[in-house]
Amino acid sequence: MKFIDAVIKANLEIYTLINSGLKASHFEFFGVGAGGDKSSRIDIEAEEIFIKHLSSFGQILSEEIGVIGEGKQKIVIDPIDGSENLLSNFPYYGTSVALVNEKDEVEVGVICNLANGEIFIKTKDDFKKGFLNTLKFNPVVTKKARVGLFERSYSNAKIVSKLASLKLKFRSPGALALSLAYANSVNFVIFFGKIRSFDVKAGIFMSENLNNFISDDLILISQNREIFDNLKEFLLKR
Amino acid sequence: MKFIDAVIKANLEIYTLINSGLKASHFEFFGVGAGGDKSSRIDIEAEEIFIKHLSSFGQILSEEIGVIGEGKQKIVIDPIDGSENLLSNFPYYGTSVALVNEKDEVEVGVICNLANGEIFIKTKDDFKKGFLNTLKFNPVVTKKARVGLFERSYSNAKIVSKLASLKLKFRSPGALALSLAYANSVNFVIFFGKIRSFDVKAGIFMSENLNNFISDDLILISQNREIFDNLKEFLLKR
Repeated sequence: MKFIDAVIKANLEIYTLINSGLKASHFEFFGVGAGGDKSSRIDIEAEEIFIKHLSSFGQILSEEIGVIGEGKQKIVIDPIDGSENLLSNFPYYGTSVALVNEKDEVEVGVICNLANGEIFIKTKDDFKKGFLNTLKFNPVVTKKARVGLFERSYSNAKIVSKLASLKLKFRSPGALALSLAYANSVNFVIFFGKIRSFDVKAGIFMSENLNNFISDDLILISQNREIFDNLKEFLLKR
Repeated sequence: MKFIDAVIKANLEIYTLINSGLKASHFEFFGVGAGGDKSSRIDIEAEEIFIKHLSSFGQILSEEIGVIGEGKQKIVIDPIDGSENLLSNFPYYGTSVALVNEKDEVEVGVICNLANGEIFIKTKDDFKKGFLNTLKFNPVVTKKARVGLFERSYSNAKIVSKLASLKLKFRSPGALALSLAYANSVNFVIFFGKIRSFDVKAGIFMSENLNNFISDDLILISQNREIFDNLKEFLLKR
């Protein structure tokens, strides 16, 4: 599929830039993007690379620039998911792209972990995971896991305390789209905070087969029904 | 240096095993290792690989098997740091090796992130970081960062709440040796819990140039003096 090939090419170009070409100037911040966060130069350059490769496929909605171009199909992009990790040399950051049709249904989701080259690609018929450097892919298989992911735990101490009482171990790695892509292999994913389409469009599509609850400020996903029910009850009561 | 070459070879062998040869049986748990955690087959196999490559250099102290061999020099190993992440397909896990002399001083520390192939190597004279697949290295440079790392945040909700009030963002990725290796590029590292030599020997050596406080159950490291002083005051009062 031409769209997927173009997304892979864009990711490869950003991956190469990050691994061989980052300068001090990439770490500079200036202004606030359409998504409300401060933009660094690497955010902007990654977005430019996506626009170059993807603008022929439809209208682009992206975190830094907002809306660009026209078309019946929309392409929702988070050019760098986990910018603050990247800028701290902490290896958990990536990109998120969703192709959305006229009925607002996601047709294709692609999430790439730029820190290790893992890439997840989902269409309506297929869900696979591989590596940017080999482009060999395997089907994504849901597995029993030992740890969950809780994004924004740093501003939700009360939930941290509740998870401890339920004996549910979590990690809090700081890149929401990536964490949604890993939902099929971890125990649960929780996000509490302002939800923006850029961050979650592809990731929610990737975890739609799992138990999930999504509201304006909460995402809860778990492959385990009992954990899902327990967490949902607690999180909604809160 | 022959010892460093042997550690790199061992890491390459474990990296290859994880990326191309893991079977369902590697995920089985059986018994409790010398470090007090349950051992999985991948923990045991990684330990066997280290023993094969390193036993000629001295006495080995390792998490699963305990003490093996004799010698004036000791080699302190965590064969898989972040096992639960590896077993959940969450990409933050690695290995830690410290070569310790007769005076109990660390001569060499090697920490490898097996999820992305990054490897940190420190001797008394040199500290460098590179990738297992290229073996190209650059000096480790301490950088301004935006996020800290707080290991075991899941059982320390009170500290989570305090960090929020200080407006200190953190990640909680779940592999202590790795997080100590990243101490030079993140804002701070906190660990609250039982400290075991296997986990921290190489990592503390790698961050000895930064502000640090280490007791029986607390590790606090920061490149930033003000953040270090604030956190130390709070964490000791606790």
